[in-house]
Amino acid sequence: MLYIVLLHYPVYNKEGRIITTAIANMDIHDIARVAKTYAVQGFYIVNPIPEQQNLAHEIISNWREGYGAAYNKFRHAAFELIRIEESLPAVLTDITRESGFVPKTIVTGANFSGNLLKFAELKEILQNSKLPYVLVFGTGSGIADEVVNMADYRLEPVKGPWNYNHLAVRSAVAIVLDRVMGV
Amino acid sequence: MLYIVLLHYPVYNKEGRIITTAIANMDIHDIARVAKTYAVQGFYIVNPIPEQQNLAHEIISNWREGYGAAYNKFRHAAFELIRIEESLPAVLTDITRESGFVPKTIVTGANFSGNLLKFAELKEILQNSKLPYVLVFGTGSGIADEVVNMADYRLEPVKGPWNYNHLAVRSAVAIVLDRVMGV
Repeated sequence: MLYIVLLHYPVYNKEGRIITTAIANMDIHDIARVAKTYAVQGFYIVNPIPEQQNLAHEIISNWREGYGAAYNKFRHAAFELIRIEESLPAVLTDITRESGFVPKTIVTGANFSGNLLKFAELKEILQNSKLPYVLVFGTGSGIADEVVNMADYRLEPVKGPWNYNHLAVRSAVAIVLDRVMGV
Repeated sequence: MLYIVLLHYPVYNKEGRIITTAIANMDIHDIARVAKTYAVQGFYIVNPIPEQQNLAHEIISNWREGYGAAYNKFRHAAFELIRIEESLPAVLTDITRESGFVPKTIVTGANFSGNLLKFAELKEILQNSKLPYVLVFGTGSGIADEVVNMADYRLEPVKGPWNYNHLAVRSAVAIVLDRVMGV
């Protein structure tokens, strides 16, 4: 059982105020449709800033209940997967409540090396286990070290035939889900 | 040798004027970075409307020569792949001039059935042939029948574990290139 997380992690500026990457409308749309295509259980958008959470709720409710829901039922089906949370621990709590098990977390990154979980290994785990797994994608400069360090696994990076790996997070989610949930 | 095309096809309204889907900024950014990752030879954006072509040129020149080029050299490297044309025949002419061969065209679509080129077949062709191939992606409601009918091949659709296939074109390009050009 796979959940995915798009993580906007809190960063503190010199005055001690939280700054973070903003939630992009296109991230919500593209990733929700990919998640639906690959039968993901839930798509969490994590952002620590209440105004950003409200913005995401507004976009989503239009496609769930507003004009968008009637206009495009396929978009509506994808948007039903979306859940907004303020932190990664809140996501883990929510999944534990829903599934009855504490999920295993897997972080993604373009520059990981060392002992990594292979795409084929994760695909096999997901096919054979009924336990919940959470795949975490970062925005901006990737996932903060303290999140990487608390994860159960680090996933191998997506690589093409040469050493250029600067994909949009939207593209990375599409490729990774195809590799681990594709038929 | 693989080229890709993002096709904004001319559609005529009741007054006989050309209407078409607009070039989206995010399409240019995401697809250029995917194309660079998978060592695509060129990324053509086709749009029949001169104002749309000019808009695309403006966005691209900022990342090639303007502020963006210095700000982000990885984006610059991806944007070097982009070429703007007014029609698919103009793309074929350009590739023929560059490569010395008339390219084979492959169209993509979410609803194709019948005799289709498999991902594994295309991957093998691209590994073993030095001839140019063009992979065409549509915007809006997909690729017009007259373009599909003139193509050499129709590629099998991307499918997940169930019958939902409503990916953004940005996601479809990422998944297809990973399947046919991935290592």
